[in-house]
Amino acid sequence: MTIKLYCFGESGNAYKAALTLQLAEVDWEPVFVDFFNGEARTPAFQELNPMGEVPVMVDGDVTLSQSGVIQDYISSKTGKFGGRSAAERREVLRWLFWDNHKMSSQAGTTRFMMNFLPEDKRSADVIAFLQGRLRAALKVLEAELADKDWLVGDAPTIADFACCGYLYYPEPFGFDRKDYPNIDAWLDRIAALPGWKPPYDLMPGSPADRNT
Amino acid sequence: MTIKLYCFGESGNAYKAALTLQLAEVDWEPVFVDFFNGEARTPAFQELNPMGEVPVMVDGDVTLSQSGVIQDYISSKTGKFGGRSAAERREVLRWLFWDNHKMSSQAGTTRFMMNFLPEDKRSADVIAFLQGRLRAALKVLEAELADKDWLVGDAPTIADFACCGYLYYPEPFGFDRKDYPNIDAWLDRIAALPGWKPPYDLMPGSPADRNT
Repeated sequence: MTIKLYCFGESGNAYKAALTLQLAEVDWEPVFVDFFNGEARTPAFQELNPMGEVPVMVDGDVTLSQSGVIQDYISSKTGKFGGRSAAERREVLRWLFWDNHKMSSQAGTTRFMMNFLPEDKRSADVIAFLQGRLRAALKVLEAELADKDWLVGDAPTIADFACCGYLYYPEPFGFDRKDYPNIDAWLDRIAALPGWKPPYDLMPGSPADRNT
Repeated sequence: MTIKLYCFGESGNAYKAALTLQLAEVDWEPVFVDFFNGEARTPAFQELNPMGEVPVMVDGDVTLSQSGVIQDYISSKTGKFGGRSAAERREVLRWLFWDNHKMSSQAGTTRFMMNFLPEDKRSADVIAFLQGRLRAALKVLEAELADKDWLVGDAPTIADFACCGYLYYPEPFGFDRKDYPNIDAWLDRIAALPGWKPPYDLMPGSPADRNT
């Protein structure tokens, strides 16, 4: 049965789930959520996910939200990208939490505020604050990748597909690949995996749609 | 062997791990990290955790950081508080991620900024922004607890012990139990579990130490 992923192109959190489905070669299809016209706040969507968030994955009678949980589910279901031992699996989970806590929250919010929020609602103080926290996270990631190709063990895992979630987007948010050579090379390695696509090619909806 | 938890009283993330160890009746002891005098940034501590964060758990040759991973480890090790089926375990993980992403990041940062950062470094804009996001998270939690005693299934799980992490602290950060009756009653239920203690009783270090 085809797995459905409720998502939209701009969502880096949805991209983590979409990329995991794609690289694990699962039979899946995206279902467009018209976030920018308020669809995530509709009763129909909130029935699917009371948290009102994208992504949501539906696999038969299993409905899941939270990108990290979807990644873990797909990895368990396919036996791919989950680490090769109990220690590696814990390490993968550690990076998923770190990403959710320290990395994507800052990257996602900063990018949203700088690119998708009306200008009169943007706060320079908040953007500076979030970018400072984002730089601290990027520094941790850059140091971690100094002497290894992948975050956990010697093969790609869902930890990589989580931490990279926002880093392929073209919109400015305080991250420039040139400033982080180890991250830059790691993003190239992920992009070389069979089936990889950038966010706006993997999921429906992009800023281009709204500018026409 | 006694499990060591590197922590300090003010850290709500450490409290989640400490509370899980305590309620699971594990043989554990806290090791004080003098965060406010920069101990988390020392080479010795960063060897323990390159991310420079508390909590860190050491159980023999297993060293783990990230509260969610420690909670998951303790729950797996003891068979307690992890949910009673695969579906419940996924639901538990979903709340752990949600807490890390939507709840604790806002609560922890707001509380730190309002109480522990020098006044000249506080930004009213940032505090207002974070409190707005925190209110959205509290609203989700309040609605979720409208018709149930525990977040997952009919028994306490580490999902409860994660989401409550910052909510027992006395310092102001934009959460008043009176405004959220369902959360208030749920916090009382958790506090009634055998062995429960509030953060400053469970872990060493508190603002009182620094005010003398």
